[in-house]
Amino acid sequence: MSALRALVWGENVHEHRNEAVREIYPDGMHTVIARGLSERGGIDVSTATLQEPEHGLSAERLAETDVLLWWGHIAHHEVADDVVTRVHKRVLEGMGLVVLHSGHFSKIFRRLMGTTCTLTWREAAEKERLWVCNPGHPIAAGIDRYFELPHTEMYGEPFAVPPPEEQVFISWFAGGEVFRSGCCWRRGNGKIFYFRPGHETYPIYYDDNVRRVIHNGVLWARPEGVWVDSFDDCRNIPADDAPEARAIRPE
Amino acid sequence: MSALRALVWGENVHEHRNEAVREIYPDGMHTVIARGLSERGGIDVSTATLQEPEHGLSAERLAETDVLLWWGHIAHHEVADDVVTRVHKRVLEGMGLVVLHSGHFSKIFRRLMGTTCTLTWREAAEKERLWVCNPGHPIAAGIDRYFELPHTEMYGEPFAVPPPEEQVFISWFAGGEVFRSGCCWRRGNGKIFYFRPGHETYPIYYDDNVRRVIHNGVLWARPEGVWVDSFDDCRNIPADDAPEARAIRPE
Amino acid sequence: MSALRALVWGENVHEHRNEAVREIYPDGMHTVIARGLSERGGIDVSTATLQEPEHGLSAERLAETDVLLWWGHIAHHEVADDVVTRVHKRVLEGMGLVVLHSGHFSKIFRRLMGTTCTLTWREAAEKERLWVCNPGHPIAAGIDRYFELPHTEMYGEPFAVPPPEEQVFISWFAGGEVFRSGCCWRRGNGKIFYFRPGHETYPIYYDDNVRRVIHNGVLWARPEGVWVDSFDDCRNIPADDAPEARAIRPE
Amino acid sequence: MSALRALVWGENVHEHRNEAVREIYPDGMHTVIARGLSERGGIDVSTATLQEPEHGLSAERLAETDVLLWWGHIAHHEVADDVVTRVHKRVLEGMGLVVLHSGHFSKIFRRLMGTTCTLTWREAAEKERLWVCNPGHPIAAGIDRYFELPHTEMYGEPFAVPPPEEQVFISWFAGGEVFRSGCCWRRGNGKIFYFRPGHETYPIYYDDNVRRVIHNGVLWARPEGVWVDSFDDCRNIPADDAPEARAIRPE
Repeated sequence: MSALRALVWGENVHEHRNEAVREIYPDGMHTVIARGLSERGGIDVSTATLQEPEHGLSAERLAETDVLLWWGHIAHHEVADDVVTRVHKRVLEGMGLVVLHSGHFSKIFRRLMGTTCTLTWREAAEKERLWVCNPGHPIAAGIDRYFELPHTEMYGEPFAVPPPEEQVFISWFAGGEVFRSGCCWRRGNGKIFYFRPGHETYPIYYDDNVRRVIHNGVLWARPEGVWVDSFDDCRNIPADDAPEARAIRPE
Repeated sequence: MSALRALVWGENVHEHRNEAVREIYPDGMHTVIARGLSERGGIDVSTATLQEPEHGLSAERLAETDVLLWWGHIAHHEVADDVVTRVHKRVLEGMGLVVLHSGHFSKIFRRLMGTTCTLTWREAAEKERLWVCNPGHPIAAGIDRYFELPHTEMYGEPFAVPPPEEQVFISWFAGGEVFRSGCCWRRGNGKIFYFRPGHETYPIYYDDNVRRVIHNGVLWARPEGVWVDSFDDCRNIPADDAPEARAIRPE
Repeated sequence: MSALRALVWGENVHEHRNEAVREIYPDGMHTVIARGLSERGGIDVSTATLQEPEHGLSAERLAETDVLLWWGHIAHHEVADDVVTRVHKRVLEGMGLVVLHSGHFSKIFRRLMGTTCTLTWREAAEKERLWVCNPGHPIAAGIDRYFELPHTEMYGEPFAVPPPEEQVFISWFAGGEVFRSGCCWRRGNGKIFYFRPGHETYPIYYDDNVRRVIHNGVLWARPEGVWVDSFDDCRNIPADDAPEARAIRPE
Repeated sequence: MSALRALVWGENVHEHRNEAVREIYPDGMHTVIARGLSERGGIDVSTATLQEPEHGLSAERLAETDVLLWWGHIAHHEVADDVVTRVHKRVLEGMGLVVLHSGHFSKIFRRLMGTTCTLTWREAAEKERLWVCNPGHPIAAGIDRYFELPHTEMYGEPFAVPPPEEQVFISWFAGGEVFRSGCCWRRGNGKIFYFRPGHETYPIYYDDNVRRVIHNGVLWARPEGVWVDSFDDCRNIPADDAPEARAIRPE
């Protein structure tokens, strides 16, 4: 079996504007996320960024991608609509999508969810504790009852998404909020995993548990079944081609 | 309690171009759908069409609407994007939406679902039998184990929508297909019911069972809970306003 | 329309053995829960307890009940299996069920869920904050973004239940845990609402927000649709009675 | 990676009483089902039957089983309750379960579902067509838009089960009914797949598409995540062991 092909997409803007972010992620957050994936093995990992032609998401590139990871924050509006449409189509065809942290407000996530994907938030470097509420789920494999992040941005409910089809994690915050931090959906042939941790000014993507969950999430989101070439058209089935043609053919 | 306010939106194009449609629906399909609703009582019904300014869907009009019904087919692309955005926002705020037949391919339904909403289809005037698979559901109230439509257009699986949260009807077609004909979703504060029957060249909206289901669907989709003013923004909760402010305030 | 008929079932054991409980609930927890319901109007409320013949849950009594509320803790094993079977059957027929706090471990809830319904717990009189994660849900009507209980028993994840079909509340605990505190399921024709708050040694059922949610839950769980007489038998449909009898009749 | 261990459980009664069944399945249905699995490779397959001590389902045997397949019909009531309890516990721990045809009425399936699992049925050797309504699902891998069985027993809606979490197939019957023929649920750590085809008097388990789906179903139902030792107890977390012990410790 050939290795799973994952593509980590990074907005790559904070890293160039903000000294504090650059210190944590001198080569960009996407490279750290990618390294976390490739270190665990079994996955061919590459990266793409907003600044590349077509944001690094050409049709050819996407055709060779099994699972796309998405981190964006300050430049969601700079992502070209036709690229979003292309990614959207690929997810419906079967490409997995792992959306990280502030990616909840990306064009692609909002288009797939059909809702605003809003939430509440606070930057106070507070403690977050992520509870496993689905211990048999493959995305929680290797995680104990919970894990903690000492300093994170807070995200709070209500998280304005469709009801998650599988709930893997729920977060507790020192400041008093809760959040559905690990959520799964299926859209078309594609699987989508949203995972909350990951602010640009905290070294979240160096955390071993976070890396493990992202790795698990990529494995979970890989395409598994048949691939329908396209869901773009409503196919006509003429009466003569009906499974029970005789039953409906005019006499 | 004041009456529920339903607004029936009709594309109203076939009726003016096609003699066969005009004979069945001389005043437009929307008026027949509206009459079916108002006859059963308890609902204030009005109509709007594509041809009106803002397609009859001004902000004021939507603000006074509890449940919107949508029938469109040949002119989905003529619905202005800003009107779709306005309707979308209202559904997320809590307005119910009942999408009929070919409305599966409308801009508003596709935006709310996040998928292509494709299916297969055939016009062969074949028999359809709609089975109740959820006999305790209020949308099936008053319907026996099944009901039949002698001549309908066929819609077949796969229906490219997110997994329905509640499945009320599944259709059997003489030509050999099946279809998930009555599906429920929740998005934001709003409830969405998709109901398959209703082609323009068959007198489907005069059928008593179809009218009963649409009436039930409007009652089901009415807003029930609290109304959040808007989900448009991600609200910041400063550390001083955190429920546990003391726990996270820098010392 | 006749009033909704709710029946509050109380185990009624702690109240007689424990002085602290008797001080808070001198007439039993069930009477306080019942009063909270009847005060808001629109519901005919009665009570039943473990100690009555058939635990107060005769076939006649259940036939006249629209929604049953269940509080039990120390005497789950004393509830007779045939009474559980009778209640189970009534829920599948369409009677609503509201399960409170330690009722998560009752025979009836476990039978309906098909899982162990375990959780973690701690008695440390800690603070609980219940967040609304579904602001359009009728069970959350009248509740702000969250409400607090100053002293409660803690329940923690994982809550070993089937995935809730609708998630209304998630709890934050001062001791560091989270819990899915308000969960909805449908089984057969019946609706089931589990609501976490309510320990016997804290005056939880005097809290206005708790009472409001329980009232909302009873309204939500009321039967709405058609009633199938029984799901007990698998009905045979002979070939001659098939909807398409001609298609399958031997020639 | 060691091979997946599947155990095919067969009631094995019809085969000994009914000449017609014996002709089709001279070594029992379970052996044909098992052969269909082992032929495709990657799975270690064994069998067990009602007649063996503990029905062939000892604690040791179950501990070595990743996925259990279940076919029963006429002797559901002869399955010992303590064996059902043991299987139930293993599913909640993470063992997959594939329930076939008349197994819908088995004790283990009904206990896991919490409902009656009734349906309607007819024996008229009619045609069934199974439609894929979820083309990206791994259980549908290798199946075209649909496949047919020329002569089957009919099962019709309503199928009295909890809402399936994933719907893979829906059946069309020549006699006019429909049925949700391929349904997925998760309970505890275990995954459950119900697959409708398989009457004892038709050679259904020799059909290549049926065998492919069962093979896919076993792969899908395999345990993937962490294993919690037991969900049997509600674990107490003393205040001193709380994640935020300082916050709740009496001063």
